[in-house]
Amino acid sequence: MSKAPIEFYFDFSSPYGFLAARVIDEKAAEWGREVVWKPYLMGVVMKETNVQPLLTIPVKGKYAYHDVMRHCRYYGIEGKLPEQFPFISVAAARAFYALTDAEPETAKRLARALFERAFIAGQSIAKPEEVLSVAESIGLDRDALAESNSLEIKERLRQEVEASLEKGVFGSPFFIVDGEPFWGHDRLRDVGEWLQRGGW
Amino acid sequence: MSKAPIEFYFDFSSPYGFLAARVIDEKAAEWGREVVWKPYLMGVVMKETNVQPLLTIPVKGKYAYHDVMRHCRYYGIEGKLPEQFPFISVAAARAFYALTDAEPETAKRLARALFERAFIAGQSIAKPEEVLSVAESIGLDRDALAESNSLEIKERLRQEVEASLEKGVFGSPFFIVDGEPFWGHDRLRDVGEWLQRGGW
Repeated sequence: MSKAPIEFYFDFSSPYGFLAARVIDEKAAEWGREVVWKPYLMGVVMKETNVQPLLTIPVKGKYAYHDVMRHCRYYGIEGKLPEQFPFISVAAARAFYALTDAEPETAKRLARALFERAFIAGQSIAKPEEVLSVAESIGLDRDALAESNSLEIKERLRQEVEASLEKGVFGSPFFIVDGEPFWGHDRLRDVGEWLQRGGW
Repeated sequence: MSKAPIEFYFDFSSPYGFLAARVIDEKAAEWGREVVWKPYLMGVVMKETNVQPLLTIPVKGKYAYHDVMRHCRYYGIEGKLPEQFPFISVAAARAFYALTDAEPETAKRLARALFERAFIAGQSIAKPEEVLSVAESIGLDRDALAESNSLEIKERLRQEVEASLEKGVFGSPFFIVDGEPFWGHDRLRDVGEWLQRGGW
């Protein structure tokens, strides 16, 4: 696989990000690509675009909840939202970046476990302690995430968020494929067709 | 075809509505369904949901424009936006309702021609005169649309908008299939799968 990996941007508090995370690596493998996961914080761009969290918008939010649950059923899972929703996903994102350079697959495993804790168990992953507990549940020890609170990792996440904004990323999930942007879990089929046809 | 038709809600000023209008009847025929077209006015629900017109939103708007043009290319057409955009679609919607009860297929033909004038020719369809000119270009005479300005048709459109809000419609395109709501041109494939599998 010498071709550029798919960039997969998401916020840990995004149910559609959760859905995409379940399938993106498997699909990308079919398309002959690897995937770089890039958790970021949507709050920053939502201020800029003056967009409210999806599920809190009148009318639209009710539909979005219905749509998320319908997608969960489609994938054979029973979706659930944490009581506190939307939630702050800084701790989860930092934990990811504390791991990913040395062990990208472990970081993805942690990300999937965090998403499942949030959107299948319906439990909070907002606090650093809660993120650590998820990490332990998949066999990581606390030392592995010791860096999560370092200045270096805080700065790393800040830079990742800034870089995502510079690339025009504004939603979750958001994919960039050979420079081409695709927003939304429902665009995954387009990503596949784009790769297979080499664009259009 | 004894099953309930697909309800297809759209605003004439919506490029994604235009894209859906090009394919919905053909796809529905494959799925063994008919389609009832229901133009409405998104402005009303956008006030309620405090949502801005998509293409005017910072960052997101730029992507949406790119995405619309990409979809146009996918369908083999060159998309173009009218200079004045978004625009008021009241005249177009009224013309549609002036025709649809007596001649639903003619009303659809007019709707497609209006969409093409707006999003392929990139010309205005905001004014009643402009709507009439499109009608003439497909062989309708002005008398056919004489009702467009009647109190009856104004009231009809008002009722259609209200009924759409009551059903939770908030975007364009928006489909309702056996009571199940689907928002977005990119959900058409889901509509098809929903019908073929009988839901999930």
